[in-house]
Amino acid sequence: MDKNKYREISELGEFGLINHLTEGIQIKQKSTIKGVGDDAAVLDFGNKQIVVTTDLLLEGIHFNLIYTPLKHLGYKAVVVNLSDVYSMNAIPKQITVSIGVSGKFTVEHLEDLYEGIKLACDKYNVDLVGGDTSSSLTGMIISITAIGEVEKEKVTYRSTAKKNDVVCVTGNLGAAYMGLQLLEREKEVFKSTKGAQPNLEGYDYILQRQLKPEARKDIIELLNEINVVPTAMIDISDGLSSEMLHICTKSGVGCKIFQEKIPIDLNTEQMAREFNLEPLIAALNGGEDYELLFTIDIADFEKIKAQPLIHPIGHIADIDLGALLITQSGQSIELQAQGWNPMKAK
Amino acid sequence: MDKNKYREISELGEFGLINHLTEGIQIKQKSTIKGVGDDAAVLDFGNKQIVVTTDLLLEGIHFNLIYTPLKHLGYKAVVVNLSDVYSMNAIPKQITVSIGVSGKFTVEHLEDLYEGIKLACDKYNVDLVGGDTSSSLTGMIISITAIGEVEKEKVTYRSTAKKNDVVCVTGNLGAAYMGLQLLEREKEVFKSTKGAQPNLEGYDYILQRQLKPEARKDIIELLNEINVVPTAMIDISDGLSSEMLHICTKSGVGCKIFQEKIPIDLNTEQMAREFNLEPLIAALNGGEDYELLFTIDIADFEKIKAQPLIHPIGHIADIDLGALLITQSGQSIELQAQGWNPMKAK
Repeated sequence: MDKNKYREISELGEFGLINHLTEGIQIKQKSTIKGVGDDAAVLDFGNKQIVVTTDLLLEGIHFNLIYTPLKHLGYKAVVVNLSDVYSMNAIPKQITVSIGVSGKFTVEHLEDLYEGIKLACDKYNVDLVGGDTSSSLTGMIISITAIGEVEKEKVTYRSTAKKNDVVCVTGNLGAAYMGLQLLEREKEVFKSTKGAQPNLEGYDYILQRQLKPEARKDIIELLNEINVVPTAMIDISDGLSSEMLHICTKSGVGCKIFQEKIPIDLNTEQMAREFNLEPLIAALNGGEDYELLFTIDIADFEKIKAQPLIHPIGHIADIDLGALLITQSGQSIELQAQGWNPMKAK
Repeated sequence: MDKNKYREISELGEFGLINHLTEGIQIKQKSTIKGVGDDAAVLDFGNKQIVVTTDLLLEGIHFNLIYTPLKHLGYKAVVVNLSDVYSMNAIPKQITVSIGVSGKFTVEHLEDLYEGIKLACDKYNVDLVGGDTSSSLTGMIISITAIGEVEKEKVTYRSTAKKNDVVCVTGNLGAAYMGLQLLEREKEVFKSTKGAQPNLEGYDYILQRQLKPEARKDIIELLNEINVVPTAMIDISDGLSSEMLHICTKSGVGCKIFQEKIPIDLNTEQMAREFNLEPLIAALNGGEDYELLFTIDIADFEKIKAQPLIHPIGHIADIDLGALLITQSGQSIELQAQGWNPMKAK
């Protein structure tokens, strides 16, 4: 891009910038009465219950701009929040976006970021209804709040799994983690070998899982269609072990998970082998898959067993049993939370 | 405080930290079905409309920890968001809080911050229902989202002022700005004179307006009691000029504001004189007063004219007139937005 075309953010000012970035936004949701442009957005959900979730993403902690295109970053920042709404069995309707940027960013950078944000809004049919922009002393800061609606009887918490429920997981696990390992490796090669170009060919699937993940809108719609309300649900942002333990702790139950049932994609397996890593470890402890982990009443098992996107991986047990992984050789291992801890990243 | 008592944030981990900081929180609002502790909060507003607003506060840009106690900062961060809810003529009910902190902060620092956050929640009767904590590479980041409810017929936008409406402002203006000037002056003295202690005695009022502002819950309750729905409303975060221009631009109208009617506290005047500054300038362009600026139908004038906290300062006019300040000597001056621009602060 022609360097002369870059515009300093200060040229537009705060209001000019937010107007520029949000112009052309069309309201899609009936529940959005007033979007961007006043002190607050105004929403109307009639008699539905509302879910609200918020996330703070910081450059250098949650994302690395060396290998994350801004458009993908904007898309992913929205998706991770929507995933939290879906994991309550709710449908996301609105988001607000606040951005802080340091002097190294131009209007064009923010346009790229917002392009990704708007793309996610279109794909998931949500309205961008508010937010602000500000300068920061260092790096980029993204704070997103997502709002969704749900019928009262369908809200699904983490804390309501019960003995004998079937534990299910969607899609496959560990791919986003292997994508991150690949990006980190190529970054190191790039830094240490002058002129080396990253070798990312043939790795599209795991890269996409890391850089442009999707939230499981399809699963929530499917569960609604086949008339299944999970007894408990959570999205997998920190790895299967960590999320399973959340459900067990909050619900006051134990569980048995069977290794052979855990879905792992062939691409993930291949990449793990290349890194001399057990694919199971990536599935259990790798984060950012944004798949759904849920429990269903055993009476609903017939309804899900032929669904190709839903995998039964075990069942809920007494709390005294603990949270166990049963290996292919029949050993019992305690699940441990080794998910990514952003308070330890430094 | 005993240095040995400080705890590293990483000792607690992310979940431990957020549990520690939010423990003991009692749900106060009927509309809060589920607060902290799941993927998202769950709210139920029945048939009310909902307002949502969000703000990102960054160390070094929006606040300076050299002279801002963390407890006050937490309190203020909540209040500025609630002020946006009130300015829609709505009642705030819930907030979410996300915090990013660098290695220089300890658990005790965050406890102080949350003490202020909880104090504001108690005072304004709102529930803290979600959020997260994360490490940051530099400084402190606070992102707050506030949610409120309002009857459909009472929502008050910026864009609906009409010709002949009376322009009103609450409380008094410019005090928070003079408080900031005082703090900046004492910071410079402190930095340049070894051992000098800040001289803040006798300045309690303007310091409180800067460090621990309040949102105008009382005014919204009063307007409701005396049965006045403003035709337009905004809160004063960037100075009277800037906010008045927002109402005029969004409503497609002009206005006449009379200098002699603008309420300025005696403490603000004295401090301005000490700085050789015209008090009017502090009132017009100083930010962070969090008073309300609103317009009412002339038919409602009788209802507000005896209210000591509400000051009529002018009226709405044709757009062709522009937005004018009429000085005490009868001169007309165009209002100009010179409020604080966080995109230019650096």
